[in-house]
Parts: sequence; structure tokens; C-alpha cells
Amino acid sequence: MSQPPKKISRVVLAYSGGLDTSIILKWLQTTYGCEVVTFTADLGQGEELEPARQKALLLGIKPENIYIEDLRDEFVRDYVFPMFRANAQYEGLYLLGTSIARPLIAKKQIEIARAVGADAVCHGATGKGNDQVRFELSYYALEPDIQVIAPWREWNLTSRTALLEFAEQNQIPIAKDKRGEAPFSVDANLLHVSSEGKVLEDPAEEVPDYVFSRTVSPEQAPDRATIIEVGFERGDAVSIDGEALGPAALLTRLNELGRVNGIGRLDLVENRFVGMKSRGMYETPGGTILYFAHRGIEQLTLDRGAAHLKDELMPRYAELIYNGFWFSPERELLQGLIDRSQEFVTGTVRVKLYKGSASVVGRASPYSLYDQDLVTFEEGAVAYDHRDAAGFIKLNALRLRTLAKRNRRGA
Amino acid sequence: MSQPPKKISRVVLAYSGGLDTSIILKWLQTTYGCEVVTFTADLGQGEELEPARQKALLLGIKPENIYIEDLRDEFVRDYVFPMFRANAQYEGLYLLGTSIARPLIAKKQIEIARAVGADAVCHGATGKGNDQVRFELSYYALEPDIQVIAPWREWNLTSRTALLEFAEQNQIPIAKDKRGEAPFSVDANLLHVSSEGKVLEDPAEEVPDYVFSRTVSPEQAPDRATIIEVGFERGDAVSIDGEALGPAALLTRLNELGRVNGIGRLDLVENRFVGMKSRGMYETPGGTILYFAHRGIEQLTLDRGAAHLKDELMPRYAELIYNGFWFSPERELLQGLIDRSQEFVTGTVRVKLYKGSASVVGRASPYSLYDQDLVTFEEGAVAYDHRDAAGFIKLNALRLRTLAKRNRRGA
Amino acid sequence: MSQPPKKISRVVLAYSGGLDTSIILKWLQTTYGCEVVTFTADLGQGEELEPARQKALLLGIKPENIYIEDLRDEFVRDYVFPMFRANAQYEGLYLLGTSIARPLIAKKQIEIARAVGADAVCHGATGKGNDQVRFELSYYALEPDIQVIAPWREWNLTSRTALLEFAEQNQIPIAKDKRGEAPFSVDANLLHVSSEGKVLEDPAEEVPDYVFSRTVSPEQAPDRATIIEVGFERGDAVSIDGEALGPAALLTRLNELGRVNGIGRLDLVENRFVGMKSRGMYETPGGTILYFAHRGIEQLTLDRGAAHLKDELMPRYAELIYNGFWFSPERELLQGLIDRSQEFVTGTVRVKLYKGSASVVGRASPYSLYDQDLVTFEEGAVAYDHRDAAGFIKLNALRLRTLAKRNRRGA
Amino acid sequence: MSQPPKKISRVVLAYSGGLDTSIILKWLQTTYGCEVVTFTADLGQGEELEPARQKALLLGIKPENIYIEDLRDEFVRDYVFPMFRANAQYEGLYLLGTSIARPLIAKKQIEIARAVGADAVCHGATGKGNDQVRFELSYYALEPDIQVIAPWREWNLTSRTALLEFAEQNQIPIAKDKRGEAPFSVDANLLHVSSEGKVLEDPAEEVPDYVFSRTVSPEQAPDRATIIEVGFERGDAVSIDGEALGPAALLTRLNELGRVNGIGRLDLVENRFVGMKSRGMYETPGGTILYFAHRGIEQLTLDRGAAHLKDELMPRYAELIYNGFWFSPERELLQGLIDRSQEFVTGTVRVKLYKGSASVVGRASPYSLYDQDLVTFEEGAVAYDHRDAAGFIKLNALRLRTLAKRNRRGA
Repeated sequence: MSQPPKKISRVVLAYSGGLDTSIILKWLQTTYGCEVVTFTADLGQGEELEPARQKALLLGIKPENIYIEDLRDEFVRDYVFPMFRANAQYEGLYLLGTSIARPLIAKKQIEIARAVGADAVCHGATGKGNDQVRFELSYYALEPDIQVIAPWREWNLTSRTALLEFAEQNQIPIAKDKRGEAPFSVDANLLHVSSEGKVLEDPAEEVPDYVFSRTVSPEQAPDRATIIEVGFERGDAVSIDGEALGPAALLTRLNELGRVNGIGRLDLVENRFVGMKSRGMYETPGGTILYFAHRGIEQLTLDRGAAHLKDELMPRYAELIYNGFWFSPERELLQGLIDRSQEFVTGTVRVKLYKGSASVVGRASPYSLYDQDLVTFEEGAVAYDHRDAAGFIKLNALRLRTLAKRNRRGA
Repeated sequence: MSQPPKKISRVVLAYSGGLDTSIILKWLQTTYGCEVVTFTADLGQGEELEPARQKALLLGIKPENIYIEDLRDEFVRDYVFPMFRANAQYEGLYLLGTSIARPLIAKKQIEIARAVGADAVCHGATGKGNDQVRFELSYYALEPDIQVIAPWREWNLTSRTALLEFAEQNQIPIAKDKRGEAPFSVDANLLHVSSEGKVLEDPAEEVPDYVFSRTVSPEQAPDRATIIEVGFERGDAVSIDGEALGPAALLTRLNELGRVNGIGRLDLVENRFVGMKSRGMYETPGGTILYFAHRGIEQLTLDRGAAHLKDELMPRYAELIYNGFWFSPERELLQGLIDRSQEFVTGTVRVKLYKGSASVVGRASPYSLYDQDLVTFEEGAVAYDHRDAAGFIKLNALRLRTLAKRNRRGA
Repeated sequence: MSQPPKKISRVVLAYSGGLDTSIILKWLQTTYGCEVVTFTADLGQGEELEPARQKALLLGIKPENIYIEDLRDEFVRDYVFPMFRANAQYEGLYLLGTSIARPLIAKKQIEIARAVGADAVCHGATGKGNDQVRFELSYYALEPDIQVIAPWREWNLTSRTALLEFAEQNQIPIAKDKRGEAPFSVDANLLHVSSEGKVLEDPAEEVPDYVFSRTVSPEQAPDRATIIEVGFERGDAVSIDGEALGPAALLTRLNELGRVNGIGRLDLVENRFVGMKSRGMYETPGGTILYFAHRGIEQLTLDRGAAHLKDELMPRYAELIYNGFWFSPERELLQGLIDRSQEFVTGTVRVKLYKGSASVVGRASPYSLYDQDLVTFEEGAVAYDHRDAAGFIKLNALRLRTLAKRNRRGA
Repeated sequence: MSQPPKKISRVVLAYSGGLDTSIILKWLQTTYGCEVVTFTADLGQGEELEPARQKALLLGIKPENIYIEDLRDEFVRDYVFPMFRANAQYEGLYLLGTSIARPLIAKKQIEIARAVGADAVCHGATGKGNDQVRFELSYYALEPDIQVIAPWREWNLTSRTALLEFAEQNQIPIAKDKRGEAPFSVDANLLHVSSEGKVLEDPAEEVPDYVFSRTVSPEQAPDRATIIEVGFERGDAVSIDGEALGPAALLTRLNELGRVNGIGRLDLVENRFVGMKSRGMYETPGGTILYFAHRGIEQLTLDRGAAHLKDELMPRYAELIYNGFWFSPERELLQGLIDRSQEFVTGTVRVKLYKGSASVVGRASPYSLYDQDLVTFEEGAVAYDHRDAAGFIKLNALRLRTLAKRNRRGA
């Protein structure tokens, strides 16, 4: 380790209950000799939280130092939905399922650190990934003098063997299936599951079937399409087929609909903020449906000026989230703009789900800007005079005509 | 008509051979008393061109005034492919199939006008749509003093009945199925078919099956996926499954693959340049496959800086094409940037086609920027030191920490 | 006139009291046979308003149909200041003095139209300029079904002689100095004076001295510099040299300071929205000082992320105002973002005024983000470790190194 | 030092001949035991280069290992001029004088490293500044496996005393005036002089007079204005008052003109890439004149579409240069776009220089896009019909009207 260990008295660890964060837990105790406070969150990753409590107790954490929280509604309401208002896609395709969860976990760790008087926080993200950046930028933005421990960058447990030895030496139980190395690594929350590494590392090779955990393959999906109606209010989905649902319940429902219809798989080679390309497989069943549905309702209710401004700003907004700048002034300023644009993004969208595709097939809104009279081929009583188009074109063409004449002169 | 007819001696008409442009042909002769030169292009719309010649002759056009040209290769090579290098999507979804054909037709009309000494050009686009703008901006940009005739904005044949009466009075043959009004209007070329109007005008109503002409429904597509390999050179597709193909042949092949697999349908409400929203159904089978395949090969071969710059500029580039500014300095400047970015966008992409979806499942390139050594979880011999990430994060966080302290002070 | 006159019963005219709008007043009465309501605003153009009332009465306007309003504070507070929060400059140089006044006048006309039950509004802007667009887009955005009368596009008084004849026929008094044609045309308000046309039309020729009305020449300015301190709160100037001043009073004071020091002249060739280039001379004495002072306080108090986002959005924001889209969703969304960024833009800036230049020479803020400890050459106790820079650079370089290796391979 | 010294056999040092880089030279020899190759460039910093050769010899560098080069023309032609084509200003004001010199020095070091078979390069930039980033990103982009030595981040000579002791121990001559600490630090090249640190560190305090070295104060400048004519070809200045001048000679002439007229001082608080704010005083006499002159000729010759695109991209382009990404694909792509836009940016601009101001007072071009006929108030024979404006406005207003009606409904 390049620097002497910082002096730490109490640290809040983002703790999953799994082998890796259990090793970190012990390593914190032995390396820093500090009190460890564990934080385990339910973000919809699909795992029980109680085993994490038991394991923390087993590893010597005091009951009052074990924090477990169900964050699913907060996650969807305050992170996923705001992001979907922007139609955010990183590099044109990725719905940012991993990126969007990090700031919330970091925020909770900081809140707990304040509550328990901890002077440090710790996460289990590796030294080559984006997640370390996302965690730590969030920590620092919220609590500028917090100390940050990133074991994967600090320790010398740099091989699987070393990790397992450390676990054994410290009486950390190792599940049988964790002895061997996992064929790929996984991150999951209510928005998505991501898989990367090992068997996925060759971007030329198709992703093996056993990697998928949240969607059936399109081939296995039903032979009949499912049509659903998603209701929106001010840019957020609020109902499915007329049934009002809270944020997490709604996304859970969409996930189930997406799962059975094989929707939301994405095989991506992406550019990490830390500088290299990586390949991953994302499954975002509900999010994919939500993305198209939201575009559908915006088509009807958003003015062109607002819509195009949003589209132009989106890549930068998505990049900010991907790079870990959720808690930055520029993300917050863009969010304010995006949120304000959604005032009338209210209505319903019908989406057809079929063997891997989510397609908008109809949309309606009390605040529709679509005007059948304006668009109809017959000239009606409306305030559209065909002859106006002539002047419109003439003035738009004026500079091009001047230019054409000049360029000839110049040739 | 608000203005006295311009004095026209010879006009080049974009002539399809259909009823509407035949009426225009006659109307030009009777209104302007001028010589009409017809131009009929094969852009892959899927219609025979010889009937157009016969019809023109029948309507009194001299043989030497009938121009018929197969533009399919030029269309794909010089218009479609450059646009796909940009991953252009208007309003996040539309692959610009109609927009991209207009500048080419306009350019050819201008070339013919110069060759035959015509002082005017004429198109059959209506007064409420984007196409009139696209045609006319192109005309003016290429030939600033050309006169433009836009019959739909000028004449008083403002009802179907009036049109048919005019046709009958002028001995224009009317096919039986053209007596009644078409239930929707269609534009087609090698890139796509668009349908809009009438039965499509209510954006809440699903598009009826009989509207589709270029794709089978996903439900009717084969139960087994088709996997193809698309080869790219410098950003353009050049082969399918190892077989080198010219631009038009390649897009034709992709169209067929897309057609049978039900790929490329898009139900869209979009914002027209002339100010209103309209609803259309686009079928872009080959283009949809091409879009995803191109993104796939760029993922591997394009640097992040170039890729993100392209993504940020794309909405504006797409808007320029949609609005008819193909022949504008800003489109050309952006095109130069995009083209230059494609120098190493060479390699192969495997795409899975299945019941409406085109999914990249693998990509390879001799110019790959993906480096397995950099991304692997194990720290190897490569030039990536985990500890570098600490400094990277620290300096990225510095301003956020300063800000957090200031904001507290300010609170 | 190309179209039959619309049926108008009552029209609200933007009336200056000058010859041209008096002619318009009469022309409205005679052409439309409608009741004319005049609106005369004090936007700081430097003219008495009472003569306008007298003239309106003389021309037969009923007293209750004469509206005169002092809008100076509203103009500066709700239009000028919000725009300066964005550091808006059109085409890199122009502080938008004319553009920003139009939406306010239009808004007041619409309010009066509603109050008096008028069905139309009328402005005196010519058919080749931007102002017609700015007025009319504002009218339509605020009152979509209002009728708009633009006499300069409608009447046939297309020469100076025709105008004077019409004036004489209608007993409109003509000041002696208005007989001949003015050597240039002028627009003025509290933010600026613009001059264009005639003697200014050759962009190669220097602007003659007699054109300037709001600034002395730098050569005539005092030989000693004046240093002032401008106080800001949340992005708006609120005091000069410690004296709190309301918006209009503050800008008036800055104008006087700028005037005597020869500050704020701009000789510009600009691109009009209607498609041609034009040349103008702008005098914006107070605004120029304000621009630099605002940049000065932002330098100290705005985070880099927010500052760069603002700078990137500024050209589009400025273009929107120039083009007349003040009352558009996209301008309003951008404004919301800009306003929110100004929360801590509070403090004082010292500006040196000297013979044409306004230079920031010092700035201070209770919310400064400048940290002397961070920037000092000596490494101190602060949270900046020189070695962090190594990692920062390494990861920023990673993609460039990968790229360099690939490009060699490709060469 | 955190890491063991790399094994270096030969290093190319950017060597000024001054005390600091002489200390670095010795430190390299003693720390790495490697052969040092010195590179001293004339970038117009205004110092003799021969003393640097003598000093290098004195410090034991072999004659064949001493590289001295006059880069002034290359600097202006290939770095300064391309940047000025973009009208680049970082954070709205800074003409990037320091930033633009770094990539050229780095490039030459790499070329020499290749020529002499060196495995490392070394610069004298400190660990808190931007220059280290600019040097190193350039090194890595050009030679991805080069080793980089940054003494200021590595050694423990962290105080002035320690440095002087090291110098004495190593027989490095110390000029008398270097014993005490400089009251500020300076960087100079043909484009500018920057001063920062110490006496400049309080951003509220005015910069003392003795800091300025390249400009007289405006107060001391002549009482009569100087008017010059700058000739441009394809975006680059090529002559002054009709005299053709090479790049460096031209900038030298402009610097002298700027110097005597007190032009180009900028007191700035800026945001460094490494995360903190710093305050500096820049003197860019010739560059300031060039900036305004270039804007002047573009006003006349650049189409609006190209001009606005350039203006929108400029902040990002300037940021790339400031941050050190000169040799990055995104800078190069933007440069290609910018360069292409300059095809017709040819003509002459007259600039008035007076006591601190550079003001364009006239411009002319054989490729002017300014058309007096179009802009004149009288409607002439030109292709501008006032009535076209009505249609132009109507269609631009259409969406705003639709929106206004909807929003009422929504209220």
C-alpha cells in the first residue's frame, strides 16, 4: 500500500452480505482497527436482506451497527424516474441501470455516517470500474471531508486465492459455489441486472444463455403479443392498465411484463469513465418498456422546442450519470430543466410487448399538442394557410441562395 | 392565387407517373403554357419506371424531354450511408427515410434544368408537409435563381373531386382504384416506406395491418432467429455474410432480411418543420438492422471522445436533414466531421434478427480499441495501476468538495 | 395588398408618437375602419411620453384609448437582468439590446388588447427586419388567436414620398427635420441604442461620429480611469459603490458611467433571422460594464460544471432571444436553468472604466469558491496531494494511449 | 516517493536554462542515473537561447544531447492560427496563450526522444497546475509507452530552501535575483505572457503595475488611435497594412501594436482542469487584436449556419485545448470542421487600436455575403418579398400558438 493507513475510528460499509464484502468487513477491522457499521439496502436486487444481518452479527458487528433499509420506492421515485424523464441513454443504447443506483447508496452511507459519527465510508467496487468513481464522487459531494476506503485499490489480496485464504483465516463462511471463480460478475437492482467479465470478455462471442437472469429469451416468450397501457403524470409512469401503482410496484410490474416477453436485453461494448472499453450484458425489462412509453407520451405532449432541447442535452446528461456526477451542479441544473419540461407530459400510452420488442401502438392525452385539423390533407377552417409555407421556405432559403451565388464567385 | 403566374418557359417536373403528378403535368401546361420536362427516378420505391415514360408520352411530353434515371446506388452511397455514419435519428427514433431522398431528387432536377435550359422546377409535395421545404431549400441552395412551382400551394384544386374533374377534363387516365380516396398516403424508397394520413390520423389508434407493405408482422416472422454478419469499411456496410455488395444491393438484401423478420416498423408522432405534429408509420427494415450494426462496430473501433462528440451532435445533424438543410454549410461541416471519425470503423458485426428485433450479438475488428488486458478483473502486466484511480477520483471530486463546503456556508 | 383586409374592430398599436407610427395610426383607421388604441411605453429610450399622448389625441384617439406606461423597472428586472445572468452575446459580441425589448412591448399590447377587448395588435416594424418576428412570435405565443397587422408588409406606401403624401393628406404634422430622409434609423431603450441603414450600410466604411448618441468617443473620455464597485445578489446587480439601486436606476447609473468613459460601442455585421446580413452600430454603455462585472462575480462563485454548461448553452439562448423566441418553452427552460445557477452569484466586483474599456480588477464574495490554500505553490495542509495528479493524468490518458497504439496498427 | 524510481536510460527534458529546470536536470542525473537530453525551444518567450546551451554544457550535458530550436513559425502557423480560426476563448475570456504552447513542446520532445532513443521525457510543470496535464496527455497520445518524469510530483524538494540547497550542492549557478522568491510566476511565448501566484493570489486585489511586461498601461498609451488593416486568407491573418508577413512575423508585429496601445490585459479567475480556481493576469496584445479582426472578417464571409455552429462548438473546443486534449480525436474532428468553414474567410479588416481597446471599424471581402440590396429599407429588384416574412412568421409561430391553447386548457 502506497500510503500509510489513514486513522479511522468508525466506517460505514456498503455491505451486501456476500463473500466479497464480508472479506472487506474483516479486512477493515484488521487493517484499520476500527468499528464497522454495515449498511445493506434493498434496491430490488432480488435478495433477502435478513441473511446479511445474520452474517454481519456473525462477523462481530454490533446489532446497533447494522443498518438495513428498503430503498426501492426512493430509488425509483427519486433516481430512476427523474432519469427516465430525460430519455437518458448512455452511448445511444444503455439505460444506466447500474450507474443510477450508486448515488443513492452513497447518500445513505453518508447519512448513516453522520448519524453514528463515522469518519469514513467504504465500498466494494474494484479499481478498474466506474462504480468506485460513482460512489466516491457522491461521498465527497455530500460530505467533503469524509475519508474513503476503497479496499480493492488498497489491499494486496489481488488474486482469488489470496481472497479465499484471507476468508478462511478470518472464519468467513464460504458458500460452496463461491469456491470456484464466478464465470461473470453481476450487479442487480430494480432497474436492471448487468453481467460482465470472464465469459463475456470477448466482444465477438455471443453471450451464453446462462448469463441471463431477468428475462426469458425472445424465443421462449409467448407467441401472442401483450398490449398494456401505461399511464403518465408529469413525465412519470403512474399506472398500468388503469391500475395506479407506486414507483417500485410499477417498475416491478413492468419488469415482470418485460421478463416474460423477453424484453430489454442489451449486449454492449461501452466506454468507461476510467478510460477503457468494456463489454457487458444488460437486462432492463421494465426500463426498456418505460423508455419507449415515455417517448410515446412526450411525442404527443411536448412542444418541439422543448423536445429538441432535451434531445440535444441528453447525451451529456447521460454521461454525467454514467461518470458518477449525479450530485453535481451541472446534473442538477439539467435535471431542473428536464423536470420543468414535463409539466404536461400526462396521458396514456399503449405498448405492444412481443418476443423482445416493446412498441408504442397508440397514445392519448388531455394535453395533446397534436391537432388533427392542422395536419389533415384537406385545407380546413384552421389557421394554416398553404401560402404561408412559400414565405417560410423563401426566408429559410435566403441565406443559402446568397451563399450559392458567393461560392460561384469564389470558385 | 395571390400572385400573378411567373413567366416560365421550361420546367423540370419530379414525375412519378401517378395520377397526382400527371395532373400537375397538365396543370403546368395549361397554367404556365410552358414546356414540361419530366424526371422520374428509381430510388428503390419498388415501381416500374417504363409506365411513367408511356404516360408522359401520352400526356404530350416530347421523348427528349423525358428523363428516367436509376439512382439507387447514388442514393445509398451518397445519402443513406453518410447519414447512417452519424447514427442519425430524428426525435430519438426516426431514421429519416423520406427526408434523405428529397435532396437527391432536387439535385437531379437542377442538373436537368441546367442541361435543358429550364428556368423552373416543380414538385408534387403538399403545402402542409416537410417535403416542400426539403425540395425547395435544395433547389435554391444549388441554383439560387431558379423558379420554383409548388402546385399544391398555388392551384385551386383543393378537393379530391376538383382533382378528378381536372383529370377527366384533361384526358388523364384514372386507375379504377384511384377513384376513391386512398385510406392513407405513401412515400417509398430503398430506405423506407412511410404511411400517413386518414386512417393513421388518430395517434391513439393502432395502425391497421393493411398499411404495412414492406415488412411482415413480427407474429408472422419465422420462429427461428436469423444471424447475419455485416461487414463494415470506414463506417459503411460493404458485405453481408462475407459477400461483398454494392450500396444498393446491400441495402436491398438487408431490406429483405428485415422484411421477413418483421423488423423496422415505427409508429411515430413527430414534429414537422412547418410547425405541427403529425403521425406516421415508418417501415425501415434494412435501415434498422444497419443502424444497430453500425453502432456495434463503432462501439469497438471509435474512441470515446469521438463517439461522445458524435452523439452530442447527432440530434442537430438529424434535425438539419429532417428540415431540408442537406445542402447547407452546417450539414456539410458536420458531415465532414462525421466522415473523418469513421477512418477505422472497419470490421464485422453479427446481428440476430428475430420477430421484430435486430440485436447485436458480436463484433470484431482489426482496429479494435477494446483491450481485454485492460478490462480484466485481475491486475495484469498492463499499464493500469489501480492506485491511479484514487488520484483520478480525487481530482475529479475536488471542485465538488469545495462546492459542498461553500454551500454549507451559504445555507 | 395580396389578401383582403381582415375584419378588425379594435386594434392596439405600439405607438411612439413619431411620424411613422402616426402614419400607421391613420392608415389603420382608414384601411380597417377600426378603433385604434395606442400604447406608448417608456423603456428608457430617452423621450418624453406626453407629446405622444397629445399627438394621439390630435389624431382622433379617444382619451380612454391612450395607454402610456413607464416600463423601465419591469424591463430591466424581468428582461435585461435575466438575460445578463446568461452572459448572452449574439454571434459572440452583440448584447441584444433591441431584441430584449420587443417581447415586453408585445406582452403589454396583448394585456391591453384583453382589457379593451381588441381583436388585433399592430406594430411599426419593417418587413425586412427581425423586429417584426420578435413582435409577432410574442403576440402569438401569448394570445394565439390574435390578429396581427404589420403595415409595412401590407400597405403600398413603399417610398418616403408616398409616406409623406399620406401624412399630408391625413393632416399628420410633419416635423421639419423629418422631411428629408434620416441618414440612419435608430432604436433606443434603457439598455442600448442601435443605429443602422443608409450611412451605415457599407460595412467597410467607418461609422461617422454623428451617429453616436449615447457615448462619447473614447478619445473624448476623461484621462483618468474611474473605478467602480458593482454589488451582485443572486446574479443581478443591486448596488454601485455600495449604494443600493433598483434595476432601472442601476442601469441608468451604469449608462452614465459608460457614456462618459466611451464604453460599449460595437460595430457589427450580423446575421438576421430573416436571412440576410446587416450592419449596425450598437451603443450599450451600462450593459457592457454589467457584462464584464457579471462574468467577474461568476468566476469566483460559480462551479466549473455549472459555468461550462452555461457557456455551452449561451449561444443557443442568445439566438433564441435574437430570433424572437422569448416566449417559447425552450427559452423558458434554459432560463430556469440559468436562474437556478445564480443562487450564490453574490458579491462585489471592481471595474475599471477607461476610454472605452471596462476591465474587472478585483472581485470578492462571501460565497467564493476560490481557495488560496488549494492554489498556492507550496503544498500545504490542504486536501490536495500532488501525487493524485499522476493518477488523474494516467486515467485521462488511457484512451489516448490505446488509440495511439491502434492507429499505428492501422497505418 | 510512493513508487520505486522507474528504470530510465535516457530522458528528454524540456529545458529553459533557468534555475528550476537546471535543478531538474541535475536531479534527473542523480536520481535516475540516466543520460539527459535537453530541449530548448524558442516560442517567442523573448529570451536568448544560447545561454541555455552554455548552461547545459556547464551542467555536463554532451553537446550532441543539446537540442535548441526556433519554433516560432510552427507555433503560430500550426497551433495559434488554427485555434484563432475557432475564436476560442476559455470561460468566455481567456485566449489560451499558455495552453496552446504545451502540445508543441511535448511533440518536439517526443520527436527527439525517438531520434535519440530516449525512453522517457520530463517537464518542469508543478503538481497543481494544468500544464502537467497538457504535457503528459500530449506525450502519451503521441508515444503511448513513453515514460514520463514529473519532478515536482516526485521529489521532496518541496520548499524554496530545499531547492536552493540542492542547487548549491550540485554547483548550479544561482543568479542573485533568484535567491529570494519571485513575487509571481511567469509563462511567456509569442502569443502571451501569463503571471500568477503570490502577489496575484488574492482575486480582490488589483494586479500591481510591475507584473506587466508585455503591454504598457492604457493610460500610458498614445493619445491618438492607430488604425491598422489586417488581411486574412482562409481564416488566417496574412498581412498588416498591406504588407505580407509570415505567421510569427505577423504576430510579432501585432504584439508590438498591441503593446504600445495597452491592449490585451486580462485579469481572470479561472477553473483549472485539476479542480481548483486560480487567478492570473494574461497579456495577449497581438492575440486580442487578432481575435476581434477574425470575428470581423467572419461576420462578412461566413454563413449564419456555419457561424452559429462554430459558436456553439467553441466552448467545448476551447475546453479541450485548456484541458490538454490537443492531440485527441475530438479536438482534431472539431478542428477539421473549423478549418473547413474558413474556405472563404478572406478579406481585410480595419481595426482601431486605442488605449486598451481593439475595435473593428470596417471590413471588406471579395467573398462577402453581405448584400446591400437585400438589407436596404427600400424594397428593390431583389428576391426579397416583404410578404414572405408573413408566412415565415406564421409557420414559426404555429407551434407556439398550439402550445398556448393547450396550456390554457391545462391551467
